[in-house]
Parts: sequence; C-alpha cells; structure tokens
Amino acid sequence: MAKKSKTAITPTREQDYPAWYQEVIKASDMAENSPVRGCMVIKPWGYAIWENIMHQMDAMFKQTGVKNAYFPLFIPLSYLEKEAEHVEGFAKECAVVTHHKLESDGEGGLKPAGKLTEPLIVRPTSETIIGESMARWTTSYRDLPILLNQWANVVRWEMRTRMFLRTSEFLWQEGHTAHATESEAKERTMLMLDIYTKFVEDSLAMPVIRGRKTVSERFPGADDTTCIEAMMQDKRALQAGTSHFLGQNFAKGSDIKFQNEEGTETFAWTTSWGVSTRMIGGMIMVHSDDDGLVLPPRIAPAHVVILPIFKKDEDRRTIMESAQGLKDALEEKQFHGRKIIVEIDDRDIGGARGWGWVKKGIPVRIELGPRDIEQNSVFMARRDNPSNQKQSIDREEFIDQITDILDNIQDSLFNRAVIRRKENTFEIDDKKEFYKLYQKSKGFNNGAFIMSHWCGSEKCEEKIKKDLSVTIRCIPFDSPTEEGRCICCDNPSSRRVLFAKAY
Amino acid sequence: MAKKSKTAITPTREQDYPAWYQEVIKASDMAENSPVRGCMVIKPWGYAIWENIMHQMDAMFKQTGVKNAYFPLFIPLSYLEKEAEHVEGFAKECAVVTHHKLESDGEGGLKPAGKLTEPLIVRPTSETIIGESMARWTTSYRDLPILLNQWANVVRWEMRTRMFLRTSEFLWQEGHTAHATESEAKERTMLMLDIYTKFVEDSLAMPVIRGRKTVSERFPGADDTTCIEAMMQDKRALQAGTSHFLGQNFAKGSDIKFQNEEGTETFAWTTSWGVSTRMIGGMIMVHSDDDGLVLPPRIAPAHVVILPIFKKDEDRRTIMESAQGLKDALEEKQFHGRKIIVEIDDRDIGGARGWGWVKKGIPVRIELGPRDIEQNSVFMARRDNPSNQKQSIDREEFIDQITDILDNIQDSLFNRAVIRRKENTFEIDDKKEFYKLYQKSKGFNNGAFIMSHWCGSEKCEEKIKKDLSVTIRCIPFDSPTEEGRCICCDNPSSRRVLFAKAY
Repeated sequence: MAKKSKTAITPTREQDYPAWYQEVIKASDMAENSPVRGCMVIKPWGYAIWENIMHQMDAMFKQTGVKNAYFPLFIPLSYLEKEAEHVEGFAKECAVVTHHKLESDGEGGLKPAGKLTEPLIVRPTSETIIGESMARWTTSYRDLPILLNQWANVVRWEMRTRMFLRTSEFLWQEGHTAHATESEAKERTMLMLDIYTKFVEDSLAMPVIRGRKTVSERFPGADDTTCIEAMMQDKRALQAGTSHFLGQNFAKGSDIKFQNEEGTETFAWTTSWGVSTRMIGGMIMVHSDDDGLVLPPRIAPAHVVILPIFKKDEDRRTIMESAQGLKDALEEKQFHGRKIIVEIDDRDIGGARGWGWVKKGIPVRIELGPRDIEQNSVFMARRDNPSNQKQSIDREEFIDQITDILDNIQDSLFNRAVIRRKENTFEIDDKKEFYKLYQKSKGFNNGAFIMSHWCGSEKCEEKIKKDLSVTIRCIPFDSPTEEGRCICCDNPSSRRVLFAKAY
Repeated sequence: MAKKSKTAITPTREQDYPAWYQEVIKASDMAENSPVRGCMVIKPWGYAIWENIMHQMDAMFKQTGVKNAYFPLFIPLSYLEKEAEHVEGFAKECAVVTHHKLESDGEGGLKPAGKLTEPLIVRPTSETIIGESMARWTTSYRDLPILLNQWANVVRWEMRTRMFLRTSEFLWQEGHTAHATESEAKERTMLMLDIYTKFVEDSLAMPVIRGRKTVSERFPGADDTTCIEAMMQDKRALQAGTSHFLGQNFAKGSDIKFQNEEGTETFAWTTSWGVSTRMIGGMIMVHSDDDGLVLPPRIAPAHVVILPIFKKDEDRRTIMESAQGLKDALEEKQFHGRKIIVEIDDRDIGGARGWGWVKKGIPVRIELGPRDIEQNSVFMARRDNPSNQKQSIDREEFIDQITDILDNIQDSLFNRAVIRRKENTFEIDDKKEFYKLYQKSKGFNNGAFIMSHWCGSEKCEEKIKKDLSVTIRCIPFDSPTEEGRCICCDNPSSRRVLFAKAY
C-alpha cells in the first residue's frame, strides 16, 4: 500500500514538477493525452477555460476593428516553397496530406489511395495562405488596413509533447493585418501586445515582462517579434503570446501590393500575432499548488460550488432548497461581464466530493449543513488559501460580498505571482555567479530570471544557450540604457536583457 | 459592352440559379473559393453569420446540459478499419496524412519525408475517436449520460464543390452523447432535432419538415437518422440538420461498456447530431433575391446601415453628428439577446454605396440628408421589400419601433418561405403525373415537394432516384397513416413520404 499523502496531488511540486503538472491536469479533469500521437483531448472543464479565453479576447480584438474570418486548413506545398526562411524555421515538422481516399488493402484493412498531384500541408500557421488572399483583395490604399483574426487549430509535429504546453495539434488565434504604412503596422504590433498583456495579467492573473526577441529568437520571416514572458513556479519562463511586425517580407512573398495615395505601386506592411492553448499551461503552472488546480475567478468555468451536508435523510429537502436559493441569489450577480456560475454537488461520496472541487480549482467552496441553515450562515473556503481554512460567514453578507471575494482572490493570485517573480529576479554582472546559478538549477528550482548585460552578438547568446540551456527571453521594453559589460564576453553593453530557462 | 441589367445580380434566379447563387455570395462579400482545392475562404461578413449561429445554438445546447470539448483532428487508420459500414458510407473520400515532415527535394523545392508507420485521417466526423474516449470514461451507470459537443472543422474530399453547400473542408458542430438506456438516447436524438428545428425556423427564418430518413439514406452505422428538410427557391430540398440514434452500434465498435444498476455489464446507447456551414447556403437560397443577399435580422452581422447624404460639404459635420446620434440611440436597444448593431457608411462612392448594402442583405437601410435632419425624420428601406421602396419616417418613431421593424422583417421572410413551400408541395397518386412533373423540372423550377405513397422497398426508392434524381427526403413525422398505393410499384402503402430533388 502506498503511504497516504498529505497533499491531494502526488508528487508535489518540489518532488517532481513535470509529473506534478501532469497530475494537476489529470486530477482536475481538464484534459488527457489521446491515443493520437501528440494530440490531446480537451475535456469540458479545460475547454470551458478556453471558451472564456476566446470570449474575452475576441471582444478585445473586435474593439480595435479586427474582424474574424476563416481560411483553409490546408496549404499547398508550393506556397511554403516560396517562403524559404519561414519554412526553415517552421514548416519542416508538419503533417503532410498526400492522398485523398482510402481503399481496401485486400487483407481486410484499408490503405491510402488517390495520390494528390501536389501534397497539402496541414497549416502550422497561416501567413502564406492568408497572404495569398490579401494579395487578391488589395489594389489601392483604400483597401487597407485589413484587420483579420481566426480562431483555429494548427499542427506542428512535435517530438516531445506535454499537455497544453506543446502538442502536435493545438488551438489558437492568429491575427493577420496588412497596412499602407510601416508606422501603422508597427503601431498594430504594439496594440496587440498591449491587449495580450492586459488579458494575461487581468484575467489569467499572470504578471508578464514585455519586450522584443533577439534576432535569433524571432518568428521566421519577421522583422521584429515582441512577446510577453511569465515566470512559472519552477522559475522557468513561458512565452505567453507574441506579436510580430513582419515588415514587407511576407507582402513580397505573397505579392500584397497596392497603389498608394500618390499613385505609386508599393508593398503592404503586415503583422501577425497569436496566443494559444499554451496559455492554459502557463496559468496552471503559475497558480496551482500541491492540492491541484487553482483557477483565477475571471477565467474559471464556475465560481462557486455548494456542497450540501446531509446529517439525516430528512434534512435533504430543506438543505437542497436552501442550496438552490443560495445558487439563485448568487447567479443574479455579474462578475466582470459574466454571470456568476454556481454548481451544487449533492453526490454522496464522502470527502472525495470536497477534494474533487479543490483539485478542480474552483475559487469558492461552500458547505451548507443543518446548523448553517439554522444560523443563516455558510461555511466558506477560498481556493487561494493554501491551508484550506474554512470560515463561517453570514449568508446575506456572503451573497452581498461575492464579487468582492472573487476580486480579492483574483488579486491575491496576481500579487502572489508578482512577489514570487520579484523574489526570483536578479541582476548579475559576474559570469561565474551567472553560470553557477544555472548550473545548480534543476527541478522545482530551475534558476531565476536574470537581468544581465549582453553585447548583442549571436555568438554570446549561442554560447550561453549551449552551456546552460538558458536563452535570452526578451530585451525588456523597460530595461533602461546603462553602461555595462556583456555577461559572456565582457565587451561593452548598453542594456540588460532577460535570461532564463524556458518552456 | 454587356447590356445594363435591371437587377443588382446577374444572372437572375430564373436565368441561372446556380450561377446566381455564386454571384450572391461574391456580391455580398461573404466568402470566396480559395486556391486550395475544394476549400473556401469565409470572409468577415460570412463568418459573422457563422459566429451568430454558433453563439445562439451553443446557448441552446448548454441549456440541455451539453458541454463543449475538443478531440483530435486526426484519426488513426485502424480506428476506421473497425467501423466497416461507417467507412463504406463516409471515409472513403478523405484527406490522408502519410508524412510528418518536409525536406529539400534537391531542386530548390520540398518533398514529404518522415513516413508515418500508421496513416492518419483528417476527421470526416468524430464518432470513432470520441467513442474511444467515451469507452475509457465509462465504467458505471453513474458515469452516464455523457453529453458532449464540439465546434470544429472536418474534411470530406468532395469532387464537385459549391461554397457553403459542399466544400472539402467545412465548419460544423458535432454532438455526441452516450446513455444508459435506449429510451434516453432516443429522447436525446429528438431533443436535439427539436433544437435544430427551433433555431432554423426562428433564427434563419427557414421553415422545415421534420422526419426520419429511409434506411438507405441513414447516416452510416445509425439505427435511425432524423432530419429537417427545407425548400429552396428552386424547389429543391436542402437537409439543414440531422440527429442520429446510433443504437449500440458505435458503442460496440468502440467498446463503450458500463455496469448498470443491477451490476450487469452492458453497452451504452449513443447519439450524434450536427449542423454545418451548409445552413448558411440554405439561408442564402431561401431568402435572397435578384438584388443579392437577404438576411434574417436575427442572424445578420449588422441590423441597420446609416447612409449620410451630403449635398454640400458644410453639411458633413452636422449630418455625421446626427448619424452618430441615431446609431447610439439604436445601439442602446436589444434584439433577441443581441445589441442592435448599426453601421455608418460615409464613403463617397455614389450609388454603389447603397447598392453595396442591398447586396450584403442588411435588413434596414437609412438615408439621412439635410432635409431629413430638418424634418427630424429618416428615409428607410427594408431589405425584405423587393421593390426597394423607401419611406420617410419620424426619427423618434423609428428608434422606438426598430425592434418591431426587425421582428416584422424576420416574420415576413419566414412567412414568405412558408407560402412558397405550400404553393409548391403537392400530393400525387398518379405515377405518370409524378414522372412528368420531375422530368420537365430544371433550373429555377426544379420540381416540387411531392407527398406520395411509398411501399417501403429500397427497390422502388432506388428506381425513382435513378430515373428522376429524386430522393425520399424523409418520412415526415406528421404524415398521417392512410391507405394508399406506392407511387412506383402500386403495392399497398400506409403513409405518404416526402420526395424531392435535393442539394
């Protein structure tokens, strides 16, 4: 017999962070690995989070004039051949459709038949196919800007997969815009990064560092890749979203041309930007604890669960009525544009019931027994409280304060993540110290966010990556100009950059 | 030079119905064919309609306890091999992924590489892959019912494609449920058909006939396929949605077993049900006219367009302010759970501006010039009015009545379609008459809905299909029991069934 653990999740974060992560997902019933290589099944509790993400971000996109559209799943091979740099960075590992039917193999099985004259690639991203459409739609500067987004599935053949973080098929949104001027395209790039920042910080309660990627870490074919980077509990970084200024590169590849106001034919300036189900992986790793998932209320599929306690069978009706009354009162309220959602769980399964909801990360649990009803109170536990303390609270007061309680949980999760990041971010100017820190880092204590000087050479960047598996996550926008020496080669440098191990 | 047409769309419905259909889509800017074989690009005006469909149906599904989830795009070949009947009917024409990377072909191009040990099929529908999950999730009757839906893309390799109606890739929802009892699964099958009926009639303003398919027209592997059938303006039928009772067939194929309350291991009973972007094709063909798209207000991306009329440049500011005020006043109102959406189009492009909105099918157009502002009135045209008459109406009255006006347009479109169907539905008992009607039918006048007796034999069904390209669309639920003789073989029959040519 295995020893009974004191935590709901085994192993704990400290014991084995990657295994803990998988276990949190399993115990919360969010998703599972499918028998299809590298693909996962997103179960209702996980998909509802993605629906909330889609719903909230979509409204933010639309407020800036972006419209949704839908482009084909398949990209002709010849389109990728036109974008050499892009393919080199991206499309080498992809799903290739070569046949369009099945026929009997003569042994009771099936085999591919109907070979295509040109293979089709399952989109790893849609720049090339959307570029082709934009080229057809753009004649004059009056046709610009084109501001499009699509919510879609994409496929990148991954060798090592991890649910939400890296799967061969994943869900995302990809925005694609075309503009008449360079400055307008650059503004759009930043505007979308601002939206990502606001959403990730406000709704997912994940503080992020904003900056631009180094040349070697850019999206293949981009002139500039901006990003937001979050710190996980194991001190690794996770890139939570990227917004690319593509210059005229894709416009030239796809022939997106227009007549400007002066009548001169010129190439458009394009951008692309995306976030994916990967964000959910980040959210899990930032907030969850050794008892399982912890959900920020703004993104939780449900906010409150009511657990009726039946001491005697004859109490059942009274208690269920009281529970339903509480649910109805709470569901009349709004929390950040959504109705408050309340579950009643009256299953008779003992302690597994309450622990089930702890592991699912629901923000507030309410126990409601005969005595609570007598006293017109409820017994409340907040999921952001790691010791799982419960408190008795007046029923009407609870109903009145529910939005404040949820806001307070949201804030406490965000603040906790900010503090954790602050405690694990250092400026280092000594190479030995830098190397020592990362060399001894592993498991749950996987280093830190290090702000160090870098001379700007790819050689130094590459050396640190090779020696320590540490990359420059970004050149933070708010990193001030200051004199210093490169952490690797000791040459002069004018700015610190953000180093970390990364997912 | 081509002769100037009196209609905004050339050709008209009477002249060439299929070409008219393509032209309506093009002129409304809903979608276009993509360079990828059989796939279309859904442009913002078309995709916004799909978003409205998703939003409204999704809420209806969820009210019945259905939850959304997401399953892999790819299905291993071996899964399909287990479902012989299903594959025979479905999966023969499908996209087959055989490789997982690209490499240089040595001539500057790319070629597929990394052959998969087992080919993967791009899902044509997800019964087999979802069945695999359900089998893992189901142990006891307590695990049932499982009520799932997914919004997804699917691929069926079609030889002849037509935008929205038949494309190789299309968007749809597919619901999949598993139940402990046969009766519960049958109830669910009908419940979902009820939802489809309500949505299609109330929101798309398309009257439908509800019934069940004959054995030969069933979904491959189903015990019963129920459907809704709508009449297009050319008198052909379009299947707008199907709900299948799958019996225990897929449960046996996928091994979805559970212990029932008596402790006996038994197979679950499953259902599946789906509607797709095809509905949009139906909506176009039911309501649109020779001036282009006509949109039912409940599904329209925008309800009202305001067209400011500037007689003099100095009017511009006053008129734009007045237009904005009107927009703001209208957008404070709700129409069937959505905010009323108003566009202001101040482009200086002459008559093309108004006609552009006619062709886009926006329900209400408002012209607003200096005289209207003086008189505190607006000049209104309703898109359901085929003669495009405009009327002057008091501004406040218009604001007060906007939801009534939209409701009235919605009703008029529905009623018009009901009348058209009534006028083109006949009971025929004479075989010669039946044959004559369909033999002379073509183009815009493609026959009728014929209610005739049928003996129930596949032979007669097949003969009529072969002779006339006419199929039994369904055995309507409301077709009364009555004595008669089969329209084909003259054998006794107890019920009339619905014959038609179909899309």
